[in-house]
Amino acid sequence: MIDMNRRGLAIAAGSAITMAAMGLPVMAATPERKLGYAIVGLGGYGLGVIIPQFKNCQHSKLVALVSGDPLKAKKVAAEYGVPERSIYNYQNFDAIKDNPDIDIVYVCLPVSMHAEYTIRAAAAGKHVMCEKPMAVSSAECEAMIAACKKAGKKLMIGYRCHFEPHNLEAIRLARSGAIGKLRYFRSEHGFTTGNPNAWRLKKAMSGGGSLMDIGIYALNAARYMTGEEPVAVYAKETTDRNDPRFREVEDMIEFQLEFPSGVIGSCMSMYSANQNHILLMGDKGRIDMEPGTRYDGNKLWVGQDRSTQVTPPPGPGLTQWAAQLDHLSQCVINNREPIVAGEEGLRDIRLIEAIYRSAREQKRIALV
Amino acid sequence: MIDMNRRGLAIAAGSAITMAAMGLPVMAATPERKLGYAIVGLGGYGLGVIIPQFKNCQHSKLVALVSGDPLKAKKVAAEYGVPERSIYNYQNFDAIKDNPDIDIVYVCLPVSMHAEYTIRAAAAGKHVMCEKPMAVSSAECEAMIAACKKAGKKLMIGYRCHFEPHNLEAIRLARSGAIGKLRYFRSEHGFTTGNPNAWRLKKAMSGGGSLMDIGIYALNAARYMTGEEPVAVYAKETTDRNDPRFREVEDMIEFQLEFPSGVIGSCMSMYSANQNHILLMGDKGRIDMEPGTRYDGNKLWVGQDRSTQVTPPPGPGLTQWAAQLDHLSQCVINNREPIVAGEEGLRDIRLIEAIYRSAREQKRIALV
Repeated sequence: MIDMNRRGLAIAAGSAITMAAMGLPVMAATPERKLGYAIVGLGGYGLGVIIPQFKNCQHSKLVALVSGDPLKAKKVAAEYGVPERSIYNYQNFDAIKDNPDIDIVYVCLPVSMHAEYTIRAAAAGKHVMCEKPMAVSSAECEAMIAACKKAGKKLMIGYRCHFEPHNLEAIRLARSGAIGKLRYFRSEHGFTTGNPNAWRLKKAMSGGGSLMDIGIYALNAARYMTGEEPVAVYAKETTDRNDPRFREVEDMIEFQLEFPSGVIGSCMSMYSANQNHILLMGDKGRIDMEPGTRYDGNKLWVGQDRSTQVTPPPGPGLTQWAAQLDHLSQCVINNREPIVAGEEGLRDIRLIEAIYRSAREQKRIALV
Repeated sequence: MIDMNRRGLAIAAGSAITMAAMGLPVMAATPERKLGYAIVGLGGYGLGVIIPQFKNCQHSKLVALVSGDPLKAKKVAAEYGVPERSIYNYQNFDAIKDNPDIDIVYVCLPVSMHAEYTIRAAAAGKHVMCEKPMAVSSAECEAMIAACKKAGKKLMIGYRCHFEPHNLEAIRLARSGAIGKLRYFRSEHGFTTGNPNAWRLKKAMSGGGSLMDIGIYALNAARYMTGEEPVAVYAKETTDRNDPRFREVEDMIEFQLEFPSGVIGSCMSMYSANQNHILLMGDKGRIDMEPGTRYDGNKLWVGQDRSTQVTPPPGPGLTQWAAQLDHLSQCVINNREPIVAGEEGLRDIRLIEAIYRSAREQKRIALV
């Protein structure tokens, strides 16, 4: 294991160089001010992952909850010190406009509800963090962007890997020329789904299968690792429609991305096996991450093989989620655009639509 | 590291089960008889790799040399105990028909010469081992198969990995259900070419670029690891034609294979970076080899990640090359067809032609 800081290759933790690698604006610290977040949706991600992260934030605090389950909401509110008056449901949601504690609404709902609650939040005068995938269609994404723009509010998509130290270091290494001229990107992302009744397996709620849910990590990584936008896609889907889990959405999809520089991206997502791998090859070596985008335990190697493991410098926050939450708070405070604004989510959804179309039509789709 | 033999999962070294996994016929040992090989071409592979292997063989011996360089041939003959009367050149090659010491001709020439020397060897009444790729076109492959058939002689292609212990064990594990239902195969094979004047970079001699030379390992592995034949291919090529190495042949090509069971294969070959990786994913785990097809140092893992490394049982010979050479000798002795006969080489060349066509036409090619 090499601490890159000790090899003269690296940079100060969370420094301007790391930030610049992701396009993160360097902002003045404003330790005295914490913006208030309302969490919409107390499911596995909102309640299990996001809410416990506010204790790690410098500029963000939990101030409100939106849930269809009043008992659950009351219990969570008590646990996290949210006043009862700041508990909302899906009917009285729009009343958040009268709650000055709420600066930002974080939409942690099934994908089909992202557009509605983003647009209602913006109409209520709140900034929005929306989970990825941004929405079930590019048309919805465009409507969300337009609504936030019209309201003069920020819109950020929950791409946590843009704040994760291994991914940030991998990007820095790729941009620094550490592996030479980039040639090839590959990423496989998959996990084994269990419950056939989960919302992610219902197309009306999820918008699609593994590609929307987990393949988006491979797709987004292809873009941030190469720093390029695909000009064409080709995809092949394989799904066992007799499997009760996959009556509505796809299981496995393999998609190829053509980048302007000649880099080829090869990505796969699936719901029927576990895999989490990112590889970027240049003509001088490779950057290898396995796992690459997990909540924790990510590993990074650089060189010809896995003999040199890299410990990245600390990321911009105590955790990837704290950094993500604080980034939007700081963008609001300093009136800057988030590095993963609505347009970033829209780009992925447009690509996902092209990938699905390619798989359906069995042909290469050139992108405008 | 696990010795599979100690886990009750494995089998006697070189046993009928391993052989059956590759379709290797189990043959009676005939230790008393060694067939005589003539090596055609004293280049890096014939001289550097194959000739030193006869000392590891049970059923094969070196008896003749064919070379355009008489001084080199004389020196090699002296070193390996080949009589001077058994040195041939490309003009008097056909005189091998009068040399009863020669049973088998091993064609280790540039690809463009494979067909001619295979056909001439068969016409001279000799069995043939021909290096892969089999020839520059499927038409040539068909002519080679026809010539050997007409002469009543065996034709085998030098697919050494079919005799390599890690690959054999990987195949056995895949067929045994160790990773469940197969879903996805991926292989990247590449190395950095140096000399722009090497014959492999001259299309007239090589027939193509990285796909013919090193990508064929990924392609062949996709077939032997899944045990299936592709029904469609799609490919994308990226080559910097300003690079003096790549004026005539392709550098990088990424190709996707569709298999009848729904398995998707994703393969890449390149001449501008080093990579040697094979991954087979099932719904219960994965088989991972890196490197997977090298001369030595191959590594094999099975399970959810790389925590369980597998030491395969010994292969069918002292080395993969000794096993390959002895396999053809035994096929001749016992009048059996080689497990990698001419038809196996033809299958790969037909696929390679389809892959090149797909890359050229930018569309999916369905295979008949």
